[in-house]
This record gives sequence, structure tokens and C-alpha cells, in this order.
Amino acid sequence: MENFIFRNPTKLIFGKGMIARLSKEIPEGRKIMVTFGGGSVKKNGVYDQVVEALRGRDYIEFWGIEPNPKVETLRKAIEICRREGVDFLLSVGGGSVLDGTKLIAAAVRYDGDAWDLVLDNSRIGEILPFGDVMTLPATASEMNRNAVISSIETKEKFGMKVDYPRFSILDPQTTFTLPVYQRAAGMADTFIHVMEQYMTVAGQSPLMDRWSEGILQTLVEIAPKVLESENDYDSMANYMMCATMGLNGFIAMGVTEDWATHQIGHELTAIHGLTHGHTLAIVFPGLLKVLREQKKGKILQYGERVWGITGGTEDERIDRTIDATEKFFRSLGLQTRLHEVGIGEDTILEIERRFNERGVAFGEGANVTGTVARKILEAVR
Amino acid sequence: MENFIFRNPTKLIFGKGMIARLSKEIPEGRKIMVTFGGGSVKKNGVYDQVVEALRGRDYIEFWGIEPNPKVETLRKAIEICRREGVDFLLSVGGGSVLDGTKLIAAAVRYDGDAWDLVLDNSRIGEILPFGDVMTLPATASEMNRNAVISSIETKEKFGMKVDYPRFSILDPQTTFTLPVYQRAAGMADTFIHVMEQYMTVAGQSPLMDRWSEGILQTLVEIAPKVLESENDYDSMANYMMCATMGLNGFIAMGVTEDWATHQIGHELTAIHGLTHGHTLAIVFPGLLKVLREQKKGKILQYGERVWGITGGTEDERIDRTIDATEKFFRSLGLQTRLHEVGIGEDTILEIERRFNERGVAFGEGANVTGTVARKILEAVR
Repeated sequence: MENFIFRNPTKLIFGKGMIARLSKEIPEGRKIMVTFGGGSVKKNGVYDQVVEALRGRDYIEFWGIEPNPKVETLRKAIEICRREGVDFLLSVGGGSVLDGTKLIAAAVRYDGDAWDLVLDNSRIGEILPFGDVMTLPATASEMNRNAVISSIETKEKFGMKVDYPRFSILDPQTTFTLPVYQRAAGMADTFIHVMEQYMTVAGQSPLMDRWSEGILQTLVEIAPKVLESENDYDSMANYMMCATMGLNGFIAMGVTEDWATHQIGHELTAIHGLTHGHTLAIVFPGLLKVLREQKKGKILQYGERVWGITGGTEDERIDRTIDATEKFFRSLGLQTRLHEVGIGEDTILEIERRFNERGVAFGEGANVTGTVARKILEAVR
Repeated sequence: MENFIFRNPTKLIFGKGMIARLSKEIPEGRKIMVTFGGGSVKKNGVYDQVVEALRGRDYIEFWGIEPNPKVETLRKAIEICRREGVDFLLSVGGGSVLDGTKLIAAAVRYDGDAWDLVLDNSRIGEILPFGDVMTLPATASEMNRNAVISSIETKEKFGMKVDYPRFSILDPQTTFTLPVYQRAAGMADTFIHVMEQYMTVAGQSPLMDRWSEGILQTLVEIAPKVLESENDYDSMANYMMCATMGLNGFIAMGVTEDWATHQIGHELTAIHGLTHGHTLAIVFPGLLKVLREQKKGKILQYGERVWGITGGTEDERIDRTIDATEKFFRSLGLQTRLHEVGIGEDTILEIERRFNERGVAFGEGANVTGTVARKILEAVR
């Protein structure tokens, strides 16, 4: 096991009717900005619950943080916060609204442009405190320091580290109106979050392995119910739990991480706007194919414990395991090949070029170069 | 799934050589009391590492917090803290030293006797900040708010809630000198901590179930190596991880808890001084026997997933599962029957009397009365 330091101070407030606790969680006397996405919270009753919970508090609303939040949008919110003296942020919506809110929190007291902070996290100084009502299980942004921010101008998308939410309120009932495609992409996102922390070196931590496999097994078990039923509370609660626990550090203690699938997936979103979780469902099977030797021990363990694959030679088991993984994503209704989502060889070459130009190599062994990324994408053409 | 609120702010600092970080974790300018047990830390080098890390800091030492820490001992430390103006506590040792330190932290600024706080946690006001170097994996006190305190005078032992450590440093190398009996009792303690949060209502949270089973599976897998090898770093690291994760709230989200085994076990320790983990290894199989109908769904799931027990009627599977559990404790070298540790019918009747006198009923269904406790103990006579 590797040495590690773990700390996650977020207060997780989970269950039916918990939005009513909101006001109690924000210190008195704060000037609050409440951030929203495109307006779905007005249709599903979340907005009304938030307004009710904030009755008597001093707050302003900021609308329009889009999926894959854009620095161009966030700059407007940052400017308003400075002008209005906002000193507490409340994100109401999915992971994108919260990610955008994290950048706002980091940038309000920064004397420069917000995109600087995305490119260089070490420039972050004072961060405004923030909390959230999370309505779309996927990113685990509600219980980690991460944000992923895009730029329209440069067609780039980068991950960054900001801070943990003070609190996160998750009421599974708020997810009942989520479209099937968002549920599918959210489950794929969660599945791959786990994989990024699990599908690396075998034998580092038997407990972390079991916990990762536990999330994967639970996702496989609940996926049909999450997709089919519109308001099965327990299924949506289980899905929310998997999403939050999939990227809050609980399964990453003392183990090597990967994140190559995310790096490549971010490029597909940056160039084509394809939904984040969907990009991962395409890239990951390709990554397993190309790096099957490097990840052999873990693929065999995963195949056996999650999919019950035990017979045959090691090569056959690996093939069947990769196949089972791709089939799982297809069972969610997601296409798993680039041509199915209209992405061709030109994009593959552009991504290779970008990584080579940046001179980066990533993944658990820091061996995924632009060329390896091209091979991975070509394996799922 | 039940509604829940989860927050665990402890900073976990885990791995080889991490004691050297100690000074960095304690704010400058504090008057520190370092608390110890009976002196084993002087033999295994931990004391020297702590002294080295605290070089230049203002601290005093308090020695002699015993297993099942006694309020009579802790009162002395509380008095010294008041007299010397101590405002930070550092526990160096096992769960008992840390539990005792938590009571000291709660009592220094309390205007009355420390035992009041044990009997009525709501009287706790200002708590001194504290951290720890944890050398004996078992109680998870290093990552929870709990303390268990005994009184020589009244022959009583009660659990209480105080606060989370600011930080906990765990270096698996510090466990290499642990005697086999303490390792065995520590693993039994961890196993039952998990059971108290798992062996209740079936179907509440598939993810929490998987994570609980993951700890149990890992313990079963590593137990022979933990017992046999004196300095296998990874085995001891895995054991430490299981112990900490077994009672830090990570497997208790949205599920019903039990704690009847602990309630009964505490009485065996209070009356006979039997090591805590050992009492649990005796009581738990008895509890499963007596409450087999109530816990049927979970016993069957546990038997299948942890012990691979699938064939036969439900009753046969339950029998085999209880048997496998008892055999596991015996494989640790622990006796699992009361007569083997010299405890007879008089103690059973005394425990029944105590619970009846207190008018308490506990366990997941609040149906373990004095009489049920007697039946549980008689089942493992």
C-alpha cells in the first residue's frame, strides 16, 4: 500500500425533504449568490423548495451555468459577486453548476482572470465558502475538490482542484425528472470514476479493491431500475450514493490512480460537445484493449468479481471482460463506438496532435502519449 | 434507505515514516499534553519518533492510561491539564489511550466531575483539540467521536460521544511488536464493529452492504498473515485500514445499526476485565443464534457473500453461517464460549439483573432486554 493523506470535511445531508435544512447550514448574515443551470429546477419543484428554505435570507440568483461550464459564463457571475459583495455561494443543480460555482468561489477574490486559475491551480488564494443542492448524481463534485471548466474561445476543457463544499444536500426525489440519457451518462461517469481509481496496479489494497468492486456491482445491479422507473426512491438513492462515493476519495486511499480515460474523453467533449459520461463509455473499452497487458492483473480480478468470468485462458477472460464492460454501457442505451456518434478519423488525429503538442503523457504509468491515445480511439472507431 | 447526515473531518495520515509529520499538524504556540499507556511505545521506537517530531514544542507527558481506561486515572490527567494550561492533547498508543484522551479533552474545561460527562454526553461543552498516533488497530477511535470509559469504583463501562480527532497518524510499522492475542482481539473487534452496522435490516443499502462485506472479506483473507508474520507491512497496513474504516461512519450511511453485542460485551469486561474484542467474539455467535429469525435475511446474505454458503435449506445455511463465524474467531486463537474464559452462570444472571434494573432494551429492534441478553449468553455457555 502507498502512503496517503485523506481528509474530506464535506457534510453530506441525504434524504427525503432535506432541502428544508438549507438555511441552517449557511451562517447568518451572509450575502448569498444562488447559482443555477438552465431552469429544469423550476419544473421539478427544487427551485420552490430552495426559495422556501431561504426565506428571510439575503440572496441573489445567477442563472445559466451550462453543461461543461464555460469560463465565459462564469466571468459574469464573478463580476456580479464582486459588485454585490457576495460571501457565500449556493449551487443548485447538477455537477456542472457546482463545478462552475467552485471556479466562481475561487475567482471572486482573485485579482486577475478566472481562466488563469484553471490553468494554474496554485494561483488560487482565498476561496468563498460554498454549499450545494445536488440534483444530478454523476460527478461527485458534491463531495470533492474537483471542477472541470471549459473555454468556448480556446475549445479546451481542463480539470482543476478548488475546495470541498461545506455541505451537500442530496434528496433522491429531485432526480425523478432526469431524462433517461442523463441517467445513463451519469451511471457511465460513476462507473469510470471508480475504474480510474481501481483499474491500475493489482494487489495494492484488498479493501479499496472490494469497495471499488462494491460500487461497480451495485451500479450493475441497479442500472435497469434506474433507467426504467421514474420515481423509485430507493433505486435513485442507491444511484446517488454510488455517484458520491465513486469520487470522494473513499476508494482512493493508498492506491495508484489512472485518469487517462478522462483526459481523452475531455477532448471529445471539448471538440464535439459530447456528454462527458458518454465519452467515457466509448474511450474506456478502447483503453482496456490497448493496455490489456499492463492492466492484466486487475482486468482478470474485475472480470471475476464483477462479471463472474472465470473459465478459459487469461486472454479469453480478458476479452470477455472487455466485452462485458462494453455491453454494460450499451445496456444503458449508450453507443460505444465513435462512428455511432459521428466522430471520425480527423478528430482522432486532432486529439493525437493536441496531446503531442502539449508534450503530456498520462495514465497510471505516465505512458499514454498522443500516439497511445490515437490507438485507444482507433480501437473503438 | 433511511435519511442520514454524514460528516467526518478527521485528517488521516497513513504510512511509513508519517510520525515525522506530527509537529506540522499541531498549531504553533500550543501547550501540549502527550498521553500514553503503559510503556510499550518505549520498546517499539514510537516514543523516540514522537519526541523527535515534537522537538522544540512545549509539551508534558502523562503516562498510565490503562486498557479500558478508568475515570479514576483520567481525573489525574484532567487536573494536570487545568493546572498547566494545556490546550492541545496528543494521544500516543492504542484505542484505550485515545478514548481516555477524548474524555480528558471534554473534561478540562468542564466545571464538575468527568464521570458526569460519561453518564450524560449532553453536558459536554468546550472540547480541547486533540490528535493521535494510533498504534493498535481495533477501535477506530482514530476516526470517530466515540470513547468507552470505565469506572473502577462502580464496575461500570459506558460508551460516549465526544469529538473527532483533528488528525490521526497511522504507521503500520508501529504494530509489528503487537502480541498475537492483541492482534486477534483487534480483528474480532473490527469484525463485530462491521456487524453492528450490517447485521440488521436486509435491503436498505446495497452499497453499504457491499462495503461492509468488503471489510469482512478482507479480514478473513488477511487474518492468517496478520497473526503469523511479525513484520509484513502490507498485511498490517490492510488490517489498520479495516479497523479504521470499520467504525468511521463510512459503512453506516442510511442503514439501521444494532450494537447489542457491544452492550453485552461491555458488561463482561466491566465484571471480569476480559479484553473487549474477545468478549465480542463470544457474544456475537450467541446473538445470531437467539435472533436468527429477526436477522434471517442478512444472515443468509452474509453467509453467501462472505463464506460462500449457498446450498441447503435456509435453516441449514443459517446454522452453517453461524458456525463459520464462530470458527473464524477460533481460528484467531480466541475462545468463543464463556466457560473457556472462566465465566459462569452467576455472571449471566448478574448481567440480566443489571439490564433489567436499568430498564434498558437495545439492538436494532430495541428488543434485547435483560432476559434476551441472558438467553444470548446461555447460548454460548
